[in-house]
Amino acid sequence: MTVQEIATWLQGEVVGNGTVRIERVAKIEEADQTSISFLANSKYERFLETTQAAAVLVSKKYQNVKLPHRDNLAFIKVDDPYLAFLQVHKKLTPVVDPFPAGIHASATIADTARLGKDVCIGANVVIGDGVIIGEKTKISHGCVIGVATSLGAECQLYPNVTVYHQTRIGNRVTLHSGVVIGADGFGFVPNANGPFEKIPQLGIVVIEDDVEIGANSTIDRATMGETVIKRGVKIDNLVQVAHNCVIGEYTVIAAQTGLAGSTKIGRHCMIAGQAAFAGHLEIADRVTILGQSGVAKSIREPGGVYFGTTVKERSRAYRIEAVIRSLPELSRDLYQLQREVEALQQALKEKKS
Amino acid sequence: MTVQEIATWLQGEVVGNGTVRIERVAKIEEADQTSISFLANSKYERFLETTQAAAVLVSKKYQNVKLPHRDNLAFIKVDDPYLAFLQVHKKLTPVVDPFPAGIHASATIADTARLGKDVCIGANVVIGDGVIIGEKTKISHGCVIGVATSLGAECQLYPNVTVYHQTRIGNRVTLHSGVVIGADGFGFVPNANGPFEKIPQLGIVVIEDDVEIGANSTIDRATMGETVIKRGVKIDNLVQVAHNCVIGEYTVIAAQTGLAGSTKIGRHCMIAGQAAFAGHLEIADRVTILGQSGVAKSIREPGGVYFGTTVKERSRAYRIEAVIRSLPELSRDLYQLQREVEALQQALKEKKS
Amino acid sequence: MTVQEIATWLQGEVVGNGTVRIERVAKIEEADQTSISFLANSKYERFLETTQAAAVLVSKKYQNVKLPHRDNLAFIKVDDPYLAFLQVHKKLTPVVDPFPAGIHASATIADTARLGKDVCIGANVVIGDGVIIGEKTKISHGCVIGVATSLGAECQLYPNVTVYHQTRIGNRVTLHSGVVIGADGFGFVPNANGPFEKIPQLGIVVIEDDVEIGANSTIDRATMGETVIKRGVKIDNLVQVAHNCVIGEYTVIAAQTGLAGSTKIGRHCMIAGQAAFAGHLEIADRVTILGQSGVAKSIREPGGVYFGTTVKERSRAYRIEAVIRSLPELSRDLYQLQREVEALQQALKEKKS
Repeated sequence: MTVQEIATWLQGEVVGNGTVRIERVAKIEEADQTSISFLANSKYERFLETTQAAAVLVSKKYQNVKLPHRDNLAFIKVDDPYLAFLQVHKKLTPVVDPFPAGIHASATIADTARLGKDVCIGANVVIGDGVIIGEKTKISHGCVIGVATSLGAECQLYPNVTVYHQTRIGNRVTLHSGVVIGADGFGFVPNANGPFEKIPQLGIVVIEDDVEIGANSTIDRATMGETVIKRGVKIDNLVQVAHNCVIGEYTVIAAQTGLAGSTKIGRHCMIAGQAAFAGHLEIADRVTILGQSGVAKSIREPGGVYFGTTVKERSRAYRIEAVIRSLPELSRDLYQLQREVEALQQALKEKKS
Repeated sequence: MTVQEIATWLQGEVVGNGTVRIERVAKIEEADQTSISFLANSKYERFLETTQAAAVLVSKKYQNVKLPHRDNLAFIKVDDPYLAFLQVHKKLTPVVDPFPAGIHASATIADTARLGKDVCIGANVVIGDGVIIGEKTKISHGCVIGVATSLGAECQLYPNVTVYHQTRIGNRVTLHSGVVIGADGFGFVPNANGPFEKIPQLGIVVIEDDVEIGANSTIDRATMGETVIKRGVKIDNLVQVAHNCVIGEYTVIAAQTGLAGSTKIGRHCMIAGQAAFAGHLEIADRVTILGQSGVAKSIREPGGVYFGTTVKERSRAYRIEAVIRSLPELSRDLYQLQREVEALQQALKEKKS
Repeated sequence: MTVQEIATWLQGEVVGNGTVRIERVAKIEEADQTSISFLANSKYERFLETTQAAAVLVSKKYQNVKLPHRDNLAFIKVDDPYLAFLQVHKKLTPVVDPFPAGIHASATIADTARLGKDVCIGANVVIGDGVIIGEKTKISHGCVIGVATSLGAECQLYPNVTVYHQTRIGNRVTLHSGVVIGADGFGFVPNANGPFEKIPQLGIVVIEDDVEIGANSTIDRATMGETVIKRGVKIDNLVQVAHNCVIGEYTVIAAQTGLAGSTKIGRHCMIAGQAAFAGHLEIADRVTILGQSGVAKSIREPGGVYFGTTVKERSRAYRIEAVIRSLPELSRDLYQLQREVEALQQALKEKKS
């Protein structure tokens, strides 16, 4: 595609030479005469003068756009240069579809399973009794789908995913490799002197539409009822969601975060990595929890930002952290002040006597 | 079953109408005329007046039990309403057995492996040379059992578990999907200027009877000797147990906790989620470690409860946390006190002169 | 082998009787007349008098070596008794090779894949289109190698590893079970009111020579460009490396540590367990991060040691932790000092009036 063709496709505006042919994408400092690049961060503005790119995507709001200094360079003005760049990248990058076409001969599919049109089933996949799989859903090699589980349409399961029995999965759900959905919740009747009796885990997991779950994350089935991952939730790698949790719509959870049993997270929350939630909490909508934070109590107020173990409101947490960093001096000052007060007391006593 | 039949089966006592037929279990606020529910938490007591349930399990100690206000409602008095409810739930819920019957044709089983009576072996299972599997043990799809490993009777391995070579697993052990037993311990000879030399990991993992290990947890083999998970230990998801650790009988470890090499945990300990243990520690029996705590030294005293990074005794940790939360004010007060002491010093100096 | 033969093989020196035949290795306190043991820690020195071993490896620097008190005991003086012991252990322990010989009939190998000489491919392995596998590389049961991925020579992939498409892996790389290489980075365009749009993850993962990655760890593919694990890096279990991270040569990362996107770690760093790194950081060479630390800013200075959330230089962090542990007393002292200052102020006022 030429620079002009790309600009037209992006609904952007060319400033400079639109005739050069683009073959690849590149960073602005590494680009060559076949490349398109982008400028989204003013730190990189200096490269505009030296870049070898044939085209650079810039923001419509960007003030410094004038005609390029070279006649084989163009700027393309767009609303969001980074997103536009990703679109071009996707268009120019040959797509590798990691999902197998058709149904592999080595798959083990129960007679009672019902597969939708145009499903892809990889090698060594095992599909249990009574499973229902929607149209165009792709299940890659080595996945195991337990008895009586249902998946909607256009889902993508990468290799070696395990979904336990009776799970209900919506449409357009993506599960990355090593994900385990529906393993038993961690429930035992404590016994001070002997074996713990297992509490049977009779509930299920429900995953609504448009959820994505990262590699090796685990979502446990409910003790009774349902563990629910609501529509549009995005979960990163190595995240633990315990029995009976509910994650609200469009909430995002970064890697290695853990939720103990029965905790309910609101909608549109942002949970950073390695955060931990105690059990039976309720977290309001649009709450942000920063990395490594420990949440031990419910958060009823929507929209706040929290940090620390246990969590404090962010600006408070930052003030506390500033004092913590100066605690050795604070402690020394206090000790010195004690000496000074003693001296004052002594001086006053001497005065009196 | 009728209410009376359920009560008899539970060794409970009916107060009210025992003739209604029960078909399902439900929460007290969601129950209908075919449901049995339970009251285990006084917060839910108000629902006793309005529930549509046919029967409610209540504690024998519960004071407010009088004849129900409806003639199609009964209370069943039992020792532990929650446990009784789980028993009824289990009885009324159709059991889904996620384990395949028999030995699947696609399994790869070494000639030298010895399988006990009534084992179940799923699709694509691989069983190595010299493996011994006890009676009624169930190994689901995609599991790999390494060379010379032994499993006892009545174990359950969910899909896609990996057990490395020479592991010794007892009876009635449950391993959830994605568990990895016996991977190499993390041992390298440091080298300040070049590659680290690997320390060969020649030991094994021993898992005793009645252990349950959650999804995607990892138990490393010993460098020499054994990593041991003792009888009745329960481990949640995504837990890391390093080489040469020993976990004492009936200890419970919640999700995402990690133990560094050679640490020994006592019996009947309770370890909450995301806790971390340094290497070469000894933790006494019946110790409780709260969530996200970091344990850097051995704990010799049995029975304590600890929190924090690094851990303090719980009530001490809570007092410290209370001061931490007021550090900005404490710091301000100290600063103000410094000013006041300066003023006093000045006043006294002026007096003197 | 006799004691003398072992000593010769280790280039060590025998003090005492070299004729006894050694059959196994053992701890010094558990050894018998067929065993060789070692002394590497002075805490165990007392066992030299009582051990039943036939030989004990001791350091050449060890001062207390005199002729043993028994005529069927020998000391072998070596440079590093622990390493020497591991070498003997390896020599005397029958090797179990967990890797299958040859290419298993149940493997699914794309016609366009190119396999080097003497590769081992286990049962149910799936190898995608265009995959290249070097000489003597061993891929155990249930592994899935995505389309257009390349592996060098002499790699070892334990069972149930997943490598996504287009990954580039060097020589002598070891991946333990459950590892997932190349899953999508966690990138979504936030949307305050509705679904998050996925940022396509078009980059790849590059793993250089001599890397080892522990069980169930996850290394995400780059959004664009490469996530890079450089030569000689050792990564423990359950570690998360996000999109576009770069881990420098010979760096070691312990279990359950997580790196957010685009963070670059230097060479020869030591990262302990459960540490967390924010995104877009740069960490200098030879930096040590202690367990559970949270790194929120770049560290430009090479060679430092850091601890805490957020991290402080180690000795500073230890001083802070000491003050934190005494905060209840510090707070009480401050309160008492406030009372004393008030009393002084009152006394001075009374004096004045």
